[in-house]
Amino acid sequence: MKLMEEKILSEGKVFPGGILKVGSFLNHNLDCDFLLKVAEEIASLYKDSGATKILTVESSGIAIAALVGAVMHIPALFAKKHKTTNIGGEVYAAKVHSYTHNTDYTIVVEKEFLTSEDKVLFVDDFLAEGNALLGLLDICAQAGAKPVGAAIAVEKSFQSGGKKLREAGLRVESMAIIESMESGNVKFRP
Amino acid sequence: MKLMEEKILSEGKVFPGGILKVGSFLNHNLDCDFLLKVAEEIASLYKDSGATKILTVESSGIAIAALVGAVMHIPALFAKKHKTTNIGGEVYAAKVHSYTHNTDYTIVVEKEFLTSEDKVLFVDDFLAEGNALLGLLDICAQAGAKPVGAAIAVEKSFQSGGKKLREAGLRVESMAIIESMESGNVKFRP
Repeated sequence: MKLMEEKILSEGKVFPGGILKVGSFLNHNLDCDFLLKVAEEIASLYKDSGATKILTVESSGIAIAALVGAVMHIPALFAKKHKTTNIGGEVYAAKVHSYTHNTDYTIVVEKEFLTSEDKVLFVDDFLAEGNALLGLLDICAQAGAKPVGAAIAVEKSFQSGGKKLREAGLRVESMAIIESMESGNVKFRP
Repeated sequence: MKLMEEKILSEGKVFPGGILKVGSFLNHNLDCDFLLKVAEEIASLYKDSGATKILTVESSGIAIAALVGAVMHIPALFAKKHKTTNIGGEVYAAKVHSYTHNTDYTIVVEKEFLTSEDKVLFVDDFLAEGNALLGLLDICAQAGAKPVGAAIAVEKSFQSGGKKLREAGLRVESMAIIESMESGNVKFRP
């Protein structure tokens, strides 16, 4: 998506360690007009997918997920983050390793909101190592729900998440795919 | 807002201790079609406010905030509950006491995203003791930004937040105001 690449080039800030800051429009200050265009693009790509539900993880996936849900007229479910694995009640849970913070956390979804009838479109702001998405796939499998694909705002193809997920057979559509960010220069996959 | 009251009556679940669970449409599984209607109502109420920015707190305020921002064509900024490695630079911070979890936490907003030029509309899913909103007001004051009002999905008028904020001169518009939930019966303010 040309618009996403332009936005990253004009507003993104690159920091050492492969960190791209896009807080001015994607995950702190939300440029809602821009994100609605992103949501419309995602909805268009997945219009024939039969998706019945958006699935994301709090917090930074929620805004895009809600907008995609509004455009596609389907609900958006967000998995909640817990610090402990000791979770009771009727929930599906999966452990996720955070590459950024080098720590593990657990994501949970209440069972009543995800069933074997659901066809699930994953939405998230970033795809790097893909651990959050693998956790969501795990939760989907527990529910017997069918994944139809993933829609990502920004993928970093120099990390392994996108490769892993595509090799596992998941359709992954990223609005921008960053190949490298060396010396602060963002290079996109053509 | 009649639609919000009907939704609470048909899908809300009341638990002891004044807890209302609305995870089926508001803060876990998001009914995006419904939330867009809520956002349109909020945008209509504040159409002459001159608001330049939505301000909310992660996580459960983000979905409504993003939708209101999309309808009003203004950005939505969400305060983060923990300082992460992805937040660099200077931040405004405020301490918030969580009534639900009986613990304190800090909310932060990067200074560059809130300035003295901003007219701020607060958006959140719940208003009970009002502590999160007081934290956002504190952050606004630090930035020199002007609050124009608050838009709340569900207010509990048997807790003191709404009263405190209105007495402090803030315009507060709640889509549903719950007066009592005794014996599991939800009663709205007429």
